[in-house]
Amino acid sequence: MPLEKLTIIGAGLLGGSLGQAARTRGLAKRVSALVRRPESVAECQALGVADEVTLDPAEAAACADLLVLCTPISNMVDLTKRILPHLKPGAVITDVGSTKQQLVAELTPLCAEGAAHFVGSHPMAGSDQTGPGAARADLFEDTVCVVTPTADTHADTLTKVNDFWSGLGSQPVVMPADTHDRLVARCSHLPHLLASALARRVLDNAHGQEQAQLCATGFRDMTRLAAGSPAMWRDIVGSNRDDILTAIDEFADELGELRGFVANDSPELIEAWLQQAKAARDNWNNSAATD
Amino acid sequence: MPLEKLTIIGAGLLGGSLGQAARTRGLAKRVSALVRRPESVAECQALGVADEVTLDPAEAAACADLLVLCTPISNMVDLTKRILPHLKPGAVITDVGSTKQQLVAELTPLCAEGAAHFVGSHPMAGSDQTGPGAARADLFEDTVCVVTPTADTHADTLTKVNDFWSGLGSQPVVMPADTHDRLVARCSHLPHLLASALARRVLDNAHGQEQAQLCATGFRDMTRLAAGSPAMWRDIVGSNRDDILTAIDEFADELGELRGFVANDSPELIEAWLQQAKAARDNWNNSAATD
Repeated sequence: MPLEKLTIIGAGLLGGSLGQAARTRGLAKRVSALVRRPESVAECQALGVADEVTLDPAEAAACADLLVLCTPISNMVDLTKRILPHLKPGAVITDVGSTKQQLVAELTPLCAEGAAHFVGSHPMAGSDQTGPGAARADLFEDTVCVVTPTADTHADTLTKVNDFWSGLGSQPVVMPADTHDRLVARCSHLPHLLASALARRVLDNAHGQEQAQLCATGFRDMTRLAAGSPAMWRDIVGSNRDDILTAIDEFADELGELRGFVANDSPELIEAWLQQAKAARDNWNNSAATD
Repeated sequence: MPLEKLTIIGAGLLGGSLGQAARTRGLAKRVSALVRRPESVAECQALGVADEVTLDPAEAAACADLLVLCTPISNMVDLTKRILPHLKPGAVITDVGSTKQQLVAELTPLCAEGAAHFVGSHPMAGSDQTGPGAARADLFEDTVCVVTPTADTHADTLTKVNDFWSGLGSQPVVMPADTHDRLVARCSHLPHLLASALARRVLDNAHGQEQAQLCATGFRDMTRLAAGSPAMWRDIVGSNRDDILTAIDEFADELGELRGFVANDSPELIEAWLQQAKAARDNWNNSAATD
């Protein structure tokens, strides 16, 4: 059963891809998109992001069964306040934010005030590129989407959100918001910061053109994430500080162990350390490939 | 003018690719390959790695104008000792090792004893895969190859080695061995160790299946290098210890600076730090794309 109306709040890479995917897959009879800039209306219409693209929160919110917040996380609370008076009772709201504890804590009671139901989501999909021009209808296929209900989330609300992600070709994985934030600090936020630190340090001004020439495909892969949006990642880091500090410290311990083996010239320990890393990575890669 | 005879010492990924590329591009009238295991002879012949594949160092070395050491770096000195008595006077020897100071210091006088001329090389090309089955005739195209002469290197020797790499489609970049080792510690060895540390820590046993499910494309890219050969990387680390320790320490300083901004909840400083990383990476990526 398709939704009567799906509303995308914000039509960048993720919102644009959501709209295209929902239309392609027939998940809603009508897809509406709320955008901020007047020039985005025609752009999003041309890109097929939604059936109707509007600057008006009331128009976007009216009659929607499911709304997905796709703006930077720092704007989500304000936008929710603006759409809330226009929602139909029982509307379900979810989001695509990369951190969940703060958002769930703020948006769950806020939505309840408006007789709407919030449950957080985090689709593990993305790109270095931003904006609706980078949107792809297949962005969510064969990905995982974390859904973070609380003890008070209605079963119907959770089912509706899980079904939505399944309908997009993504696998919903349900876990508490704090577990999500701890795990993504390790596997997503930490790698981003490592990529940025590596790009900063290797490409510093002291080492010039010769250094840049010697950066090859390994360096390219290891710094790709550093090209992401600084404003977006500032918000992500700010909303998951404690878990990120723990992840940085644990990583520093891991690298420090290896540093000790190198300083002590211990080839057997270095090889065993590298071998365990390879085994963990190969094992993950093989299981990911056969999922 | 093609070489009369090119000899590849060791036919794994790099040696096999060198042989295929030299034959495809007509760089030598005859390409010979020395292999260690009897079963490799037929395999390398079937793969077109060389015109003749042999287990006999004397046969491989005889009459060669240019020999390229393509074994793990820990075997290069021993193999050089074995081929040295069979070289024609004035033969030029180079290698593909990932570190240069130790090798250049050992091989330069050793080759001179045999009336041969050594100059070190490091082609910045590779793959996660190993063995001649992974060899590709185009592996060196559009790459950089560092060549590391000493103050005593003959101009003819340097020219012969530079021309060889150019003939394979690679761009030779000449610099002293110590400069090379310092720069690759930063842009190649450090990234490898970061990838391994990340794979070890994120995929540790304490976090289980939920953690593995949340590892997405960013994590995949950031840990790809960890799948490399532990034995080969043990040797690389062992042969470039001081530069790698410095690179680890500088990286830890860089990450520590960011950690301080996160701990102090300084969004402006976090964004500026991320912005500088993005600028450095984008600038490198754009100049690499237009080289």
